[in-house]
Amino acid sequence: MSKKVEFTIIAITGRMNAGKSSLFNLLSGQKNFAIVDLRPGTTADTVATRMEIHDFGPVKLLDTAGIDEGSILGEKKRKKTYEAIEEADLTLIVVDLLKYGQKNDFFPERAVARRAKHYGKQALMVYNIFKAGGIKPADLAALEKSANQKLNLGLKSLCLQATDFREQKKLVDFIKLNFQRKTADVNLLPLAYDRGYVLLNIPMDEETPSLRLLRPQDMAVERLLRQYLIPVLYRPDLKKARAGEAAEKQRFLGTIKLLQESKEGLKLVITDSQAVDILDRWLPKDISLTTFSVMMTNYMSGGNLKLFSRGLGALAKLKNGDRIVIMESCNHDRKCDDIGTKQIPGLIRVKLGLELNIDFSFGRPLPDDLKKYKLIVHCGGCMIDRQKYQRRIVKIKEAGVPITNYGLFLAWVHNHAAVARVVKIFK
Amino acid sequence: MSKKVEFTIIAITGRMNAGKSSLFNLLSGQKNFAIVDLRPGTTADTVATRMEIHDFGPVKLLDTAGIDEGSILGEKKRKKTYEAIEEADLTLIVVDLLKYGQKNDFFPERAVARRAKHYGKQALMVYNIFKAGGIKPADLAALEKSANQKLNLGLKSLCLQATDFREQKKLVDFIKLNFQRKTADVNLLPLAYDRGYVLLNIPMDEETPSLRLLRPQDMAVERLLRQYLIPVLYRPDLKKARAGEAAEKQRFLGTIKLLQESKEGLKLVITDSQAVDILDRWLPKDISLTTFSVMMTNYMSGGNLKLFSRGLGALAKLKNGDRIVIMESCNHDRKCDDIGTKQIPGLIRVKLGLELNIDFSFGRPLPDDLKKYKLIVHCGGCMIDRQKYQRRIVKIKEAGVPITNYGLFLAWVHNHAAVARVVKIFK
Repeated sequence: MSKKVEFTIIAITGRMNAGKSSLFNLLSGQKNFAIVDLRPGTTADTVATRMEIHDFGPVKLLDTAGIDEGSILGEKKRKKTYEAIEEADLTLIVVDLLKYGQKNDFFPERAVARRAKHYGKQALMVYNIFKAGGIKPADLAALEKSANQKLNLGLKSLCLQATDFREQKKLVDFIKLNFQRKTADVNLLPLAYDRGYVLLNIPMDEETPSLRLLRPQDMAVERLLRQYLIPVLYRPDLKKARAGEAAEKQRFLGTIKLLQESKEGLKLVITDSQAVDILDRWLPKDISLTTFSVMMTNYMSGGNLKLFSRGLGALAKLKNGDRIVIMESCNHDRKCDDIGTKQIPGLIRVKLGLELNIDFSFGRPLPDDLKKYKLIVHCGGCMIDRQKYQRRIVKIKEAGVPITNYGLFLAWVHNHAAVARVVKIFK
Repeated sequence: MSKKVEFTIIAITGRMNAGKSSLFNLLSGQKNFAIVDLRPGTTADTVATRMEIHDFGPVKLLDTAGIDEGSILGEKKRKKTYEAIEEADLTLIVVDLLKYGQKNDFFPERAVARRAKHYGKQALMVYNIFKAGGIKPADLAALEKSANQKLNLGLKSLCLQATDFREQKKLVDFIKLNFQRKTADVNLLPLAYDRGYVLLNIPMDEETPSLRLLRPQDMAVERLLRQYLIPVLYRPDLKKARAGEAAEKQRFLGTIKLLQESKEGLKLVITDSQAVDILDRWLPKDISLTTFSVMMTNYMSGGNLKLFSRGLGALAKLKNGDRIVIMESCNHDRKCDDIGTKQIPGLIRVKLGLELNIDFSFGRPLPDDLKKYKLIVHCGGCMIDRQKYQRRIVKIKEAGVPITNYGLFLAWVHNHAAVARVVKIFK
């Protein structure tokens, strides 16, 4: 019932007893949150907390189990840890400098760095000292340098004593200085203007929540304002519009004309997907049009909209008997179910005239054998983090299976031309 | 870090073992949430849960301790229960019908109803049956009728078996049918139009959160859209404006002129308080102007804005040596502290030239001896529920002490005339 906020995810990884939980506590300022204990393998599972770093933004901080734990339980924990690395925008790799700094075996650390890189994420090294007393700063610096050379990963590093709360600022500054936000940021709306109007077309009904915008609307408005564009929010009366009432069309075109004839001009119209057919007809062809759903697909997938529109090509080539899968990343939203289990299969049969073998995969993990599918039709992923969504996309891309999503599928089935129009600004 | 949502607060009250927690569980659908036990006084304190009732909206549901508990601990619990009744938009008074229905003593129930009424809130009766088996429906109806007559409070009632989960729909329908939302709703923006533009002036800086509007902005946009008004969001460059750059003023006036000359016209400008001085100068006097802060004061206080503007009259009459109190409903926001402990006392000394005795009251409970103050200067209450805020206002009104708030105080000190302008639309 409260709105989702965009977090930067930071994962803390490393071997057992490298000082991960101490670092977690240091960064989060929670002295007694993660269980810190000198027995190996104290962090049973991935521990998460949410925090705000001043001048940096909201952070979801993940503490993970040791990547070098043995046993079957260790294997399970390792899977969880890998999941955290694949989702995190930034992975901190913690090394007990005095214990491992002079060894040559950095196999687990390399594995983490490789995995982060593979998922397009960033990693940084944190060399932890459990007891700094008695060691000269110059010796520590030499150890850090030599460890970096042996690792040979080209990652920035920091040396600190994670159990010392006075080190917090050093750690925060290190992250602020070195984190490359580009790994987390996608341009929500690629508009190269700093003047002009953007109309947001927002139908409402009794189901529309009170006293707040929906998340994609809220996000778009803030991004437009930030670059001095002027969002104009317009509520159409969809019933009147569908009934063909001329006054309703005139009301809309009145606002469009006003903005078009302004000095700064009308740069874009963004509509709720429900009204895309009407707006495609009403709006003069020279005005850019997109939908909140397409905007969010591009955003959630980390700028991979074209992957989803290419999927429509595979859809166009489907033949009777082909196997596809309709996939949702959660399984607790009845409305989604309805689209996934009824609307889409119905449209495939009736509108496309195809008899396909349709599997359903609702819930978190991806099916093992993706390659047997000619197409994945995925939900919008509205209930999961962007990072979790992107991790799925990477795995689907690797399997080489074409993918599209509910929004594009529905738009395409109803109106091929409108789809081409609404994806255009993201090219 | 997530945005606040507007809840309807429903409190469940009644004597020990009347079935309050069973009703709580029935309504919330949580079979094992509140501790239900037949020993008297099982609900140790006020228990709260948040839920969504379909076609009704977000609800914060409060389960309370028995109002008839004895002992000192009982007294403490009763205070908490009264607090819940004073905050709740709706209080359900639960009576064990078979045990108390035929008695004449409804003292505790009357006390609850009286208190709810005093705070302008609504109460409904729920007659709970622990074991319906063996009693004829007609007999139950007769018992319910007779209890209502003895109570003589004119409250609507429902008879059900709270431990029977099949009764949930009956209870929900009863609440939907009888709850008068007016006790919870204040018109956020009293605009009697269904056509026209409203400009929202929203300065931004590095501290402004990413990818979302602030809550008052979000609320205003949704309310305007709902009634088919067209919100136009405008970001001024405050630095340029304060530096007197002509182009910055022209850019703003360009948008104002465009909207003014539209067929539907410009109905209102709402600005962030930071920019009210500039907009008061820039905007033609015939255009209505208000601030998000004034809008929220009116909303949070349940339409009592005039109480706060009257407080400015008391401020104008203060003399050296008078005692006032600067009050905040929370004590964990450094920025607020800064306004409360530094800016306002400073302005009183420097701008108003007064030497006052200033007390500070930061945190939840109101001071006991309010009457010694000539004025209360209250924070905006941004961190607490509207219902909690209104409860404070009722108590302050009762004490008869003039009150104003930070937003109005700051605006008034800088520019008396602008204050008169920004409160005008709420009269």
